[in-house]
Amino acid sequence: MTTTTEQEPTMKAIVTTPTDREIYIEQIFNAPRGRVWQAMTDPELIAQWWGRGNKLVIEKFELERGGHWRFVEHSPQGVHGFEGRFREVTPPERVVQTFEWDGMPAYVIIETMVLEDLGDGRTKLVTTSLFHTTEERDGMLQSGMEGGLNESYAALDRLLAKLG
Amino acid sequence: MTTTTEQEPTMKAIVTTPTDREIYIEQIFNAPRGRVWQAMTDPELIAQWWGRGNKLVIEKFELERGGHWRFVEHSPQGVHGFEGRFREVTPPERVVQTFEWDGMPAYVIIETMVLEDLGDGRTKLVTTSLFHTTEERDGMLQSGMEGGLNESYAALDRLLAKLG
Repeated sequence: MTTTTEQEPTMKAIVTTPTDREIYIEQIFNAPRGRVWQAMTDPELIAQWWGRGNKLVIEKFELERGGHWRFVEHSPQGVHGFEGRFREVTPPERVVQTFEWDGMPAYVIIETMVLEDLGDGRTKLVTTSLFHTTEERDGMLQSGMEGGLNESYAALDRLLAKLG
Repeated sequence: MTTTTEQEPTMKAIVTTPTDREIYIEQIFNAPRGRVWQAMTDPELIAQWWGRGNKLVIEKFELERGGHWRFVEHSPQGVHGFEGRFREVTPPERVVQTFEWDGMPAYVIIETMVLEDLGDGRTKLVTTSLFHTTEERDGMLQSGMEGGLNESYAALDRLLAKLG
């Protein structure tokens, strides 16, 4: 089956602000849900897309309730650590976790990621990020997050095609 | 100098809810600020009051911006882990940190602790806890937090008197 999106380059993710402390991100991938889940939860695969082409060292990835994760991205601009803990892991459809960047330690985002099987071989990924304050949310929006996000998703798209 | 509070047993902490996602806690200790700071930041001293008489294992206490902490309390009811990370450490007056209980992993509270020198040998400790949601805040209030808090503060009071 051919869909129009399969013939187009990666669409940019939809990014909105449904409340004053949240960011909502929606993206559709041309791969079945199980494959997207695999690319998002297998450390060897995560290392191939999360860093947008930069070297990514996965120091910790304990994919279960209460487990911790920690990634270190080695970019030309410097070394950036990211870490968090899993609140909920429900394969193949839902992960709730905390997210922190070492540059702003103890500023904690709650990320809820939901994978929806669209029934036509495609999968919708919806990520909702909840911040403690509006200022923290707006700081993230102004950080160039959206560009980095689209680079990561484009890399994920390429990986999913390769895995297919 | 003698004040009335020195002759009374430990007063209960003032606990209020200034906004729909915060808990405000205020307590006065009969000790100078430097001594209260010491009791709150020296792991050997923390172990003597934080656990309210229960054995407390301090697995990690990296008292600096970005550092992590982790305490494990061994109570008759079971073993409880608590952990977080420091956002700000300003001796001897201010610590901002995250706080999580293993029983609800990735539910993160931002705790801001301020020590105010009252100028008469006493110190006021104000702790403001910010939650991601009102439900999480109310869950904490209903958990018996206030009783445990007053037990901890009474133990801290006794330790401060011993150190004096």
